[in-house]
Amino acid sequence: MNHKNNIDILISEVGPRDGLQSVSATMPTDLKLKWLSALADSGLREIEIGSFVSPKLLPQMADATTLVAHMRQRPEVFVTALVPNLKGAQAAFDAGVQKITMPISVSEPHSLSNIRKTHQQVYDEVRAVIALRNEHFPHIEVEAGLSTVFGCTIQGVVHEDDVIRMALTMAELGVDEVGLADTVGYANPTQVRSLFTRLRNEIGAKAGSAHFHNTRGQGLANVVAALEVGVTTIDASQGGIGGCPYAPGASGNIVTEDLVYLLESMGLRTGVDIDKLVAAREWLVKGLPGEPLYGFIPDAGVGKNFQYAGGAR
Amino acid sequence: MNHKNNIDILISEVGPRDGLQSVSATMPTDLKLKWLSALADSGLREIEIGSFVSPKLLPQMADATTLVAHMRQRPEVFVTALVPNLKGAQAAFDAGVQKITMPISVSEPHSLSNIRKTHQQVYDEVRAVIALRNEHFPHIEVEAGLSTVFGCTIQGVVHEDDVIRMALTMAELGVDEVGLADTVGYANPTQVRSLFTRLRNEIGAKAGSAHFHNTRGQGLANVVAALEVGVTTIDASQGGIGGCPYAPGASGNIVTEDLVYLLESMGLRTGVDIDKLVAAREWLVKGLPGEPLYGFIPDAGVGKNFQYAGGAR
Repeated sequence: MNHKNNIDILISEVGPRDGLQSVSATMPTDLKLKWLSALADSGLREIEIGSFVSPKLLPQMADATTLVAHMRQRPEVFVTALVPNLKGAQAAFDAGVQKITMPISVSEPHSLSNIRKTHQQVYDEVRAVIALRNEHFPHIEVEAGLSTVFGCTIQGVVHEDDVIRMALTMAELGVDEVGLADTVGYANPTQVRSLFTRLRNEIGAKAGSAHFHNTRGQGLANVVAALEVGVTTIDASQGGIGGCPYAPGASGNIVTEDLVYLLESMGLRTGVDIDKLVAAREWLVKGLPGEPLYGFIPDAGVGKNFQYAGGAR
Repeated sequence: MNHKNNIDILISEVGPRDGLQSVSATMPTDLKLKWLSALADSGLREIEIGSFVSPKLLPQMADATTLVAHMRQRPEVFVTALVPNLKGAQAAFDAGVQKITMPISVSEPHSLSNIRKTHQQVYDEVRAVIALRNEHFPHIEVEAGLSTVFGCTIQGVVHEDDVIRMALTMAELGVDEVGLADTVGYANPTQVRSLFTRLRNEIGAKAGSAHFHNTRGQGLANVVAALEVGVTTIDASQGGIGGCPYAPGASGNIVTEDLVYLLESMGLRTGVDIDKLVAAREWLVKGLPGEPLYGFIPDAGVGKNFQYAGGAR
């Protein structure tokens, strides 16, 4: 079964990775498994289950192998993971992921501060990962997730030309997709339209997902712009977990619940059942007691005139 | 001075009306005056100061005449008020408003439940207000603010044809502008594009403002759609005050602070200084202690790459 069958927009649920690695508490593995199952039950077709990184660095992600094994029992779900380097890629491939995303900072100061690598060192890492994939794991997809694309807390402005140059380099190195991430919540719809249009013009079908943070409340506005210019994969996290502690009320990723409502209301099929999705929050609440969850739909419910695109779930 | 000079999008600040009339506490008049002055100081060009309604019905709005007199000392601000009927119109005109907005439910069940009037009775009221305006106050603008345009909590679906028919009737009765309001937070960007396009096709330059509620977190997404189809006046309220008590976290109107950030980031001039706007919240906090305020920008601040459209304030 192709995970993109019978849907218009693929929501890639990144809460188990981007959300959980941004909070200091570690969600117990048994509750993660229940949460992941509930997310799959809601109809989500792609889930980023975690990161393959040093457990010393991110103990919250130490159980990634177990999570992959669990989710691979659900053939309708495409199982992905974040991988920063060759060692992580080997572990992720061995675990059985179907796709990895390598985070690539377009801002070199951000890259140096975040992973202590120059762009040249990052290219070497990607080259090694692609070689490993090509030789031993040809069916696994590799995505470059370009970060700080819409601006950087260190560098400030990030130029479009630099983003496109990096996307072209990644395509030349052999990645299958290049996604654009608004790591720090700086994006605006004009930028989003412009960059995704240029991305598609330059790398065609390798143009990948849109990853927005809702730090400044602009997340769904940016989604509307991305949809206009043909983006068909949108990252989101349940409950918008992973907000910045310095900015109360500033959620992390855009909230999956609100995104599903937006898309389905617009007539775009996601495959997701909103009631089941909201029910999945139960495991997050149990697994991360006291962690703030965001989103409007879980509280307000859908409108009385709401209809799922393509008919009732 | 024309209040639309040197800006691309007119933000109509409706917090003093839609916000304050939706909370049960009454903000003291002296603090309202300070708040209104601070809003004007921030660069907002249009402010709906309140409603001219029975003080028995809405004691929060009893000081509307005082507020109009105060704000008319600011020639750069266009002073508007909500008016449900002829009596209110007479009072608003006498007080010196520059524009009134008459709320008109497209859903007749909503009209009956809300103001106990059939559509026919509403038309009679509008006709009488227009006659009064034409005879004695020819320089004051009259807007019909069509409500429940994107759906209704009583009726559910509201058909586009009914919205357009009502807009045409209002234009024939002689109103200067017809705005569309998502009274209950049901709108989606597809609907917004479609309805505002039809509105402009049918009534041309009389097509007016977009008024969105953020009940389901879709407010700014709908703004992006409205901008695309040529809407140039957007209603918003500082702090998104006036949220539904049944839906914690569900703000009332879209948040002015976040809207200014969206528009300016997109290169659209609003005339508003974000720092001064955020500073104006002080009076709201003093005037409505304990009332929840919404918005991301007041907490997160603008991005490091942020620039005002058309140069620094």
